[in-house]
Amino acid sequence: MLIWKKLERPVLYNAVVIEGLPGIGNVGKMVVEYLIEKLKAKKFAELYSDHFPYHVFINEDSTVDLPRNEFYYYKGGKQDLVFLTGDFQSMTPQGHYEIAQNELDFIREMNINRMITLGGFGVEGMPAKPKVLGAATTKELVEEFKEAGVIFEDGERVGMVVGASGVLLGMGKLCGVEGVCLMGETLARPMFTDARAAQAVLEILTKKFNLTVDMEDIKIKAKELDRAIAKAKELEAQMLTKLKKPGEELTYIG
Amino acid sequence: MLIWKKLERPVLYNAVVIEGLPGIGNVGKMVVEYLIEKLKAKKFAELYSDHFPYHVFINEDSTVDLPRNEFYYYKGGKQDLVFLTGDFQSMTPQGHYEIAQNELDFIREMNINRMITLGGFGVEGMPAKPKVLGAATTKELVEEFKEAGVIFEDGERVGMVVGASGVLLGMGKLCGVEGVCLMGETLARPMFTDARAAQAVLEILTKKFNLTVDMEDIKIKAKELDRAIAKAKELEAQMLTKLKKPGEELTYIG
Amino acid sequence: MLIWKKLERPVLYNAVVIEGLPGIGNVGKMVVEYLIEKLKAKKFAELYSDHFPYHVFINEDSTVDLPRNEFYYYKGGKQDLVFLTGDFQSMTPQGHYEIAQNELDFIREMNINRMITLGGFGVEGMPAKPKVLGAATTKELVEEFKEAGVIFEDGERVGMVVGASGVLLGMGKLCGVEGVCLMGETLARPMFTDARAAQAVLEILTKKFNLTVDMEDIKIKAKELDRAIAKAKELEAQMLTKLKKPGEELTYIG
Amino acid sequence: MLIWKKLERPVLYNAVVIEGLPGIGNVGKMVVEYLIEKLKAKKFAELYSDHFPYHVFINEDSTVDLPRNEFYYYKGGKQDLVFLTGDFQSMTPQGHYEIAQNELDFIREMNINRMITLGGFGVEGMPAKPKVLGAATTKELVEEFKEAGVIFEDGERVGMVVGASGVLLGMGKLCGVEGVCLMGETLARPMFTDARAAQAVLEILTKKFNLTVDMEDIKIKAKELDRAIAKAKELEAQMLTKLKKPGEELTYIG
Repeated sequence: MLIWKKLERPVLYNAVVIEGLPGIGNVGKMVVEYLIEKLKAKKFAELYSDHFPYHVFINEDSTVDLPRNEFYYYKGGKQDLVFLTGDFQSMTPQGHYEIAQNELDFIREMNINRMITLGGFGVEGMPAKPKVLGAATTKELVEEFKEAGVIFEDGERVGMVVGASGVLLGMGKLCGVEGVCLMGETLARPMFTDARAAQAVLEILTKKFNLTVDMEDIKIKAKELDRAIAKAKELEAQMLTKLKKPGEELTYIG
Repeated sequence: MLIWKKLERPVLYNAVVIEGLPGIGNVGKMVVEYLIEKLKAKKFAELYSDHFPYHVFINEDSTVDLPRNEFYYYKGGKQDLVFLTGDFQSMTPQGHYEIAQNELDFIREMNINRMITLGGFGVEGMPAKPKVLGAATTKELVEEFKEAGVIFEDGERVGMVVGASGVLLGMGKLCGVEGVCLMGETLARPMFTDARAAQAVLEILTKKFNLTVDMEDIKIKAKELDRAIAKAKELEAQMLTKLKKPGEELTYIG
Repeated sequence: MLIWKKLERPVLYNAVVIEGLPGIGNVGKMVVEYLIEKLKAKKFAELYSDHFPYHVFINEDSTVDLPRNEFYYYKGGKQDLVFLTGDFQSMTPQGHYEIAQNELDFIREMNINRMITLGGFGVEGMPAKPKVLGAATTKELVEEFKEAGVIFEDGERVGMVVGASGVLLGMGKLCGVEGVCLMGETLARPMFTDARAAQAVLEILTKKFNLTVDMEDIKIKAKELDRAIAKAKELEAQMLTKLKKPGEELTYIG
Repeated sequence: MLIWKKLERPVLYNAVVIEGLPGIGNVGKMVVEYLIEKLKAKKFAELYSDHFPYHVFINEDSTVDLPRNEFYYYKGGKQDLVFLTGDFQSMTPQGHYEIAQNELDFIREMNINRMITLGGFGVEGMPAKPKVLGAATTKELVEEFKEAGVIFEDGERVGMVVGASGVLLGMGKLCGVEGVCLMGETLARPMFTDARAAQAVLEILTKKFNLTVDMEDIKIKAKELDRAIAKAKELEAQMLTKLKKPGEELTYIG
């Protein structure tokens, strides 16, 4: 079961969809929500599905809403943009396909044939400066986004894109919506909302689309994260020093 | 698969649906069954679903019935009432959406556009006097039920309403049936049928709808529960006293 | 997905369906297969479903078949009989409803409006002589089968009928096929194919339908089971005697 | 949800389908991929399903594809051949039936009524020379493939064929596509891609269909596996010798 609530029918010209849903490091959702806020993008459609959880959220004003995906548009830049974000990805495999197919139908109704899906790419050990990795539906898109600073590898390290960002790309390839997935490197474990990875992806996107976006807030959050990581490392080093008494070999306790 | 068995087509004027299905503390089901019994409400529809368990119950007269949801009506008060109760909630997430959508279609066919869903709200530590918390589909309903004694918080404590009471509200919001959820505070763990929480919800409802309902039975059950709780506390205190010998610090054994 | 393979369209007059699928003690399946064999009932329909397991069986002649339910008919008695048996019950709750609905449609197409579903009823401790318990869709059927020797209790002990035998009864009640479930008492744990319970159910059925069925084979199997149980009890007694040395209290090691 | 991508409509005469998907020992997939490569068979159709995993693979050139099943054809031999292979079998029981039904519809549209499904048959202890076991939809096929060197047993040892190879056979039997399953004996545990079993199946197929296939590569892989197994046995023997000191009984440590 899918229910669309269409709030407005915006006139868009040559638009691109940028998708960011909850996922690893919450990178995609953080990037898209940041752009929606800073660009004051306007919500124009909501999608509800029985593959989202069976509860309502209670808002601050005590009103309730079912989980949903949301579409926003922004017409102030070089190119019209449509943002896709939401509370959840599908809870079931079948739902991933059903939701992607319906969202792609909606995208094609708007005469949009290009899509950028966002996510995190989990690595071991916090990267000094997170890279943005990519995969795409066509070789032309690979070349185009290489020039924008995205790293494309041979598939051996990345291997697959799981969830909405992947299925949207794969289904889009079958129905004429080309797409590229941008993945900011983030710590695979423990998982946290990663402002550093989000900043890396935002830098690629704002440059690529020539967007004037105030980056101050994301930089602050990324620096806070930098400090928290430095602090954690320092504590770890102190702990190891205490454990290692003079004349003894260090024994790792982990 | 959904099967409706419609027993009667009552003529209702400006009716309100009050839903109470099994759930935390069984508060909703207890309240609605109490009102059905005391108001002698009449069953007029049954709904069967393959998202309920795959068994039949054996009744006292050895006849059998599949699990079902049931609709009753009551026309003797200030406002016509429709009660929705049943043996089970859906066993699957998808079923929650399918059943809610079909029940809302049925509700709209009766020209009803207001619904009260009931439930329990699990707290830690038995509340001295259980409050009734609320959430609603519109700000107007929030204001209206605040005046009726319901507590509306900012969503931080309650957060979400899970199951039929939530999905009915959320789906109702999408299809023009406004609703409010009333949740009686009850013990989250261990769970038991909570007559005290049910009494608190019943007091709100009977006052709001100006219903003449004999409250004696629910008060007796609530008092029995009060005594059982007092007894349990006393036993616990005695046990702690025995454990704590003179001159020793109390050590909690849990 | 449901696939019917109809092999023949028998002309039946006032027939009754007797269903026995795998279940507790395999009582139902054993009874129906025994009747099919002894009465030389003829297969006339097969039902395949994607709610059965996703494999094929390899027959003795190396040919393969998907799991299925099968319908047989027998016209040589006082009343025409249709037998329903099969390899499996549904693997999913939804499948139980879908299969029951389709089988009931098929039953109604044959102008049959009465159904007997069979099963086992698990008890603790092997019954000296297994009783046959019942539940039905109408009070008239309860009375009719009480006279046939079936025990109907008030629902407190039996409570529910789970699976195909229950859902067929419950769905039948909704669509005009009356039914009664006969359950032979069998050991709940450990579970084994129980010829004694099957014999008890067979005795009710053959008498009720005035069937001339050679009962020798089932009696032999039931007696073998009797002997096996007696042997097991004897061994248990010997073991207890050995464990309990003179002058010592018996300590149960379990 | 099923999506067909048909790339070409080959004109085939009296063709046979040979299916090999991932499974035990990966025998089927290895055989079919070997034939596709050596015979330079041409892909003409892809099937996508929401019962495959919800991710895309990243190819070597950084482009992405959803998991899929693929159809290839080869017209250079005595008889036209269609190969069916893919990344995955269905993740769900229902998907197995849905995919098999759709693939059989596609096969029948091409006027094909014969199918060979391939798999591994897990045995305990590595067979000196793996046999190829079979099961079929008709007795005639059993006889025909006995002559081709396939072993047909009475069903007691093999018992069932699980997954796509089985369901395709079983559904094919219902809709007029006859079929035989060939299973190469392979080690049940630990599971690995078994080139020896694949070679055994390839030998049956190439002889039966009079195919000119360069067998050098599969022989090399099979010999490598032979050597690896001999090596493993030798190491095991050495270990046992070391464990067994003079004058001591051998104690197996496992």
